[in-house]
Amino acid sequence: MRAGRIDRSRTPLGTVSARSTAMPRFDVVALDADDTLWHNETLFTATQTQFRALLARHQDAAVIDQRLYETETRNLRHFGYGVKGFTLSMIETAIELTEGRIAGAEVQRLIDLGREMLQAPVELLDGVAETVEMLAADHRLVLLTKGDLFDQESKLARSRLGESFSAVEIVSEKDARTYAAVMARQRVDPPRFVMVGNSLRSDVLPVLEAGGAAVHIPYHVTWAHERVPDDALVGKEFARLASIRELPAWLAGA
Amino acid sequence: MRAGRIDRSRTPLGTVSARSTAMPRFDVVALDADDTLWHNETLFTATQTQFRALLARHQDAAVIDQRLYETETRNLRHFGYGVKGFTLSMIETAIELTEGRIAGAEVQRLIDLGREMLQAPVELLDGVAETVEMLAADHRLVLLTKGDLFDQESKLARSRLGESFSAVEIVSEKDARTYAAVMARQRVDPPRFVMVGNSLRSDVLPVLEAGGAAVHIPYHVTWAHERVPDDALVGKEFARLASIRELPAWLAGA
Repeated sequence: MRAGRIDRSRTPLGTVSARSTAMPRFDVVALDADDTLWHNETLFTATQTQFRALLARHQDAAVIDQRLYETETRNLRHFGYGVKGFTLSMIETAIELTEGRIAGAEVQRLIDLGREMLQAPVELLDGVAETVEMLAADHRLVLLTKGDLFDQESKLARSRLGESFSAVEIVSEKDARTYAAVMARQRVDPPRFVMVGNSLRSDVLPVLEAGGAAVHIPYHVTWAHERVPDDALVGKEFARLASIRELPAWLAGA
Repeated sequence: MRAGRIDRSRTPLGTVSARSTAMPRFDVVALDADDTLWHNETLFTATQTQFRALLARHQDAAVIDQRLYETETRNLRHFGYGVKGFTLSMIETAIELTEGRIAGAEVQRLIDLGREMLQAPVELLDGVAETVEMLAADHRLVLLTKGDLFDQESKLARSRLGESFSAVEIVSEKDARTYAAVMARQRVDPPRFVMVGNSLRSDVLPVLEAGGAAVHIPYHVTWAHERVPDDALVGKEFARLASIRELPAWLAGA
């Protein structure tokens, strides 16, 4: 299913840089956004710290975290990914943990925290601005991100990276079907498509399943929902880089 | 950040219809979803009735409606369109109107109302199932809808209409730029693109501005935000049909 798509027909660049003498292995380089291009999980972590403080007199930190995670997981199929769903889950968890005794002003504070997250400046990861610009000179770049359409569009606009991407695909879930659909839309054969991102669950395993290649660039925090057990990786072939700065060299040598 | 530039040189629509000639006038027929294919505003209206009942001992119905609308409008730029944003706005309005005295259980009830909206069965408008199938046989159909990505994808899946559409575009706002981008992506000249929907503000005026054609099929309720003043329609040319059942004949004769 086509989803929240922004496309940009870019004229192919006539000039080829000196180092790309060999035929590039990939036609399309797809990049994840949250925690690959810009910081995201740290924002959720920081908000969760404030949430914990707000409920500290009612419950232990570990219980609060556990209950919030349970609520988020239960609500995912109704609310999807994103700040609005997270905010509703915080409110619901707070009501549960206080047995309904939470004050209106505290609920308002949670809504304000959500609104602050949506307004937070988009902070690019180290090396992203220059690397994305460099990559765009030699590759067809696609931004391929999960989450709330409205929120992700707003972040992309604020990131000032938009011009580097020939297409933007915002999807509600990244599974093998989604990747196959994106490859079909981008008219690229799976072996000539590479996905780059921080999540093994969303950016690596499903794209391999769809016949593409994957580059894992870990972020220092991973939301529990995105973690995968070690044995899910047995026999999987993908690259792992420490920073996006290593990506141009990897693509040149891949 | 959205694709493409808007071509301001509009091709005039031409008022004379060359009926019964074989060549169809439009290559792409884009259909709005909410209140064009399936009922939506009635669901919001029904929820708002329950919201009003919940707050009845605090405020008059008219005040409640007015404050909710103000909160929604203020929050649109943060939350976008959709049920999750509406739910957060209901909670915020309830806190304001009760001066923070709303009980946790009542806030929980509002979250439950939101979740019920997201789970509500998708009820197609009269004639939609058969007409969409009929249209798909002769036209390239695009579903073009505003709103929350996750929610709209879910509704489309439940509607069982998905197979009739050659593309689905879920966008965060329907303005002339969005329409121009969709036309570019669908590789269709503006004069050969027609948008069909219930909202003058979202489905008619901006597509005309982008050089396309428009068919207005009014729904019996219109959210205040989607209303346009009468003088915005002066000099605009578009068709108005009473039901989607009339669309195949209109397209054949347009």
